[in-house]
Amino acid sequence: MIDCVFCKIIAGKQDANIVYEDARVLGFLDHRPIRIGHTLVISKKHYETIFDIPDDELAYLIQATKKLAGKIRQNLNAKGLRISNNNFPAARQIVPHIHFHIIPITGEAPFKVKLDRINVTKTDLEEIAAKIRAD
Amino acid sequence: MIDCVFCKIIAGKQDANIVYEDARVLGFLDHRPIRIGHTLVISKKHYETIFDIPDDELAYLIQATKKLAGKIRQNLNAKGLRISNNNFPAARQIVPHIHFHIIPITGEAPFKVKLDRINVTKTDLEEIAAKIRAD
Repeated sequence: MIDCVFCKIIAGKQDANIVYEDARVLGFLDHRPIRIGHTLVISKKHYETIFDIPDDELAYLIQATKKLAGKIRQNLNAKGLRISNNNFPAARQIVPHIHFHIIPITGEAPFKVKLDRINVTKTDLEEIAAKIRAD
Repeated sequence: MIDCVFCKIIAGKQDANIVYEDARVLGFLDHRPIRIGHTLVISKKHYETIFDIPDDELAYLIQATKKLAGKIRQNLNAKGLRISNNNFPAARQIVPHIHFHIIPITGEAPFKVKLDRINVTKTDLEEIAAKIRAD
């Protein structure tokens, strides 16, 4: 996709700190990291979200993410690893090209994230579950 | 695993609001949701982290997560979906049984998360990338 910054990185037209590459997948550092070693793993084919990527490509992408996360864990001595995938701007997907974040937690302090848990009753949960299960 | 709360849910010995089930995977609501419809997707076999689950089971788990996320998107009219997997307590993995979170964003407000971006220079990024690439 011509205006996609990740497609430009794949094409070598945009700089990036590449940490992994194979025929189908590219891994590179997020240039605005949340933690040291914050890495993005992308499919070389352009798909916008998890709903657009075919199942076999998704499988390959998560397997490559796992492999790279293992290397990051070892080489940066990470104590924990957070893997995430945001879909659509409402979920803070900034670049519309499917990617998994790998965020290694290297220090002693745990990952700080504002959890914003909401109050729900048992009945609320039952109603929501029924809604999701519906055809 | 006898003391694992997710294994108890699979065995029917612990209540949960189940939204998806097949031979290999179970999906149920997080009982302390971050958003309405916050769902966990787990492998029926007990593996602690992404590094323990075999690649083919991981592929199946993410494909089931995608399928269920699509259903949540449709049935709850979600504007965005955040999918995440935390590994080890340092990354806030609370139950040591691999799971993907599906967090639907249903309102107009975007997902609030404290980003904690850190300051890094180009040289920092180059050094980190070299460290990750090292064998």
